[in-house]
Amino acid sequence: MITTGSQQAIHLVLDALINPGDVIISPRPAYLGFLGPACKLDANIVTVPTDLDGIVPEYVEKAIELSEKELGKKPKMIYLVPDADNPKGTNLPAKRRQALFDIAEAHDTLIIEDSPYRSIHFKGEKVFPIKSLDKENRRVVYLGSTTKEAIAARVGFALAPEELREHMIKAKGYFDLCTPLIMQRVLDEYYRNYIDDMLPKINSIYEARAKAMIEAMDATFPPGKRTDPKGGFFIWWESENKNFDAKDFLERVAMPNEVLFVPGEAFYPLGGMAYMPDSNSLKPTAAEKHELRLSYSFKDEENIKEGIPILGKLLTEELSN
Amino acid sequence: MITTGSQQAIHLVLDALINPGDVIISPRPAYLGFLGPACKLDANIVTVPTDLDGIVPEYVEKAIELSEKELGKKPKMIYLVPDADNPKGTNLPAKRRQALFDIAEAHDTLIIEDSPYRSIHFKGEKVFPIKSLDKENRRVVYLGSTTKEAIAARVGFALAPEELREHMIKAKGYFDLCTPLIMQRVLDEYYRNYIDDMLPKINSIYEARAKAMIEAMDATFPPGKRTDPKGGFFIWWESENKNFDAKDFLERVAMPNEVLFVPGEAFYPLGGMAYMPDSNSLKPTAAEKHELRLSYSFKDEENIKEGIPILGKLLTEELSN
Repeated sequence: MITTGSQQAIHLVLDALINPGDVIISPRPAYLGFLGPACKLDANIVTVPTDLDGIVPEYVEKAIELSEKELGKKPKMIYLVPDADNPKGTNLPAKRRQALFDIAEAHDTLIIEDSPYRSIHFKGEKVFPIKSLDKENRRVVYLGSTTKEAIAARVGFALAPEELREHMIKAKGYFDLCTPLIMQRVLDEYYRNYIDDMLPKINSIYEARAKAMIEAMDATFPPGKRTDPKGGFFIWWESENKNFDAKDFLERVAMPNEVLFVPGEAFYPLGGMAYMPDSNSLKPTAAEKHELRLSYSFKDEENIKEGIPILGKLLTEELSN
Repeated sequence: MITTGSQQAIHLVLDALINPGDVIISPRPAYLGFLGPACKLDANIVTVPTDLDGIVPEYVEKAIELSEKELGKKPKMIYLVPDADNPKGTNLPAKRRQALFDIAEAHDTLIIEDSPYRSIHFKGEKVFPIKSLDKENRRVVYLGSTTKEAIAARVGFALAPEELREHMIKAKGYFDLCTPLIMQRVLDEYYRNYIDDMLPKINSIYEARAKAMIEAMDATFPPGKRTDPKGGFFIWWESENKNFDAKDFLERVAMPNEVLFVPGEAFYPLGGMAYMPDSNSLKPTAAEKHELRLSYSFKDEENIKEGIPILGKLLTEELSN
């Protein structure tokens, strides 16, 4: 079904499936535009740690088992952004995709594969969508978008199991009746005749910006680790110093110096539970404060080459105190 | 604020204001796209009778008083479509607009003035929007749209009190992030340079269609009464025979003869209460079945002149049995 951006598809899936208290398994950190409506619908979000490759399937399985045992609820869905994750910029390896699908099958839960960045890919092999494993169209809801390669059109889509799709279509009538037909017509033309020419150009622009950002970070940032995006818009950085408060630093130091980023804590749900591998237990969610999301999508290389060293210098000064 | 059609604005207003059990005063019948999300949010919809001029303010006031007394709830809002109502095609007179505004002031409740058809006006003087009485922007939420005079663009807007508007803008982020910028840009051009030329043309097309439908109805329909639209898309017809079941007739008789209309009962809420003037009391809602909505927006005059007499003949046969 066609939606007004994949954001609407997220909202429609949640609207159709979530009753107050229902459990959702989500990466930690996760996309704000998913966490927001999920929290609003009073979902109980159980987050699972991610590493530099994305969500960790064995932790997903443990979190499902603990949800069933301790919260008395089989999770309704596992949400993730496997391709060029927002916020972390990770790309989920093939093995993990297969493992997640198998876990969803074994525990009879849905996977919400939110993939608006899939076309923005500039490094390494593209990995298959989890949806491609779902031969019977009953296990995976795939959400896509045109907005990353055809900016401002706001046309997305959802591939969903039949019954869920019917619910979503009905609910969409109440949301906005219909996605602008003119935009759909324009995109029909664009995808038929222009996308093959445009996509390599678009991707080489983003690749150059990502490269500029990575080089500047590696040259100027204090000790920490960063993700290595194969596509999409984002790099995630974690300070080695866990006491670093990125939000405080943003407001006190970075903004007065005209450098902006998004503090990582914005991508943790308010409330909900967190699966903790060390103790194999669920604890109340606590946002990490020493992380930040950098975006190379909007600013050009020159700007990135100017801005990132300023941020690197400010971070280095801050963290050497 | 800009919205994806005024449908989204309706949804955002309800989303921001309605908790389960909250009372909404609505005309009877009322727009489906309002009743649907309101019911979904578990609003208690108290409907008020309408006549050939629209909603009756004195009944609105009685319904508010009874809601407070019997349901223990001050209504959160009064919803209506004062210009070229959907479904009835009525145009609320100036005196009633003033009276409604005064009632909302006296009882400290909001008016949701949903006016997507306002530009489609072809008969008599245009009446001022209720919003124009709201000098301090605290009593009336005005919802407008471009979709009736610039089809398929799906760009609407809301004028709302400051605090409510802030809530709606925040919620919109979860709904669809943003209304397509390209469409907004196109409409900016259209309204600056083309609307003054186009609107008279558009209105004369609808006027001719409405006239064709009215003439054919008056010539062929059995006893009953109809509204007399000054604009918009719809005519409402009520059979004199209250035992007539329009939905049954549609399926059994009209559809096999390739004539379509919308049975009036679709515009009554499921559940909720109805203010009954005769007994000055609230009763559980019961949909009227002897009414129907006809639309002259989509089909051209020739089609209307062919179709309405067929419907008139079928209705006459049905109702003379």
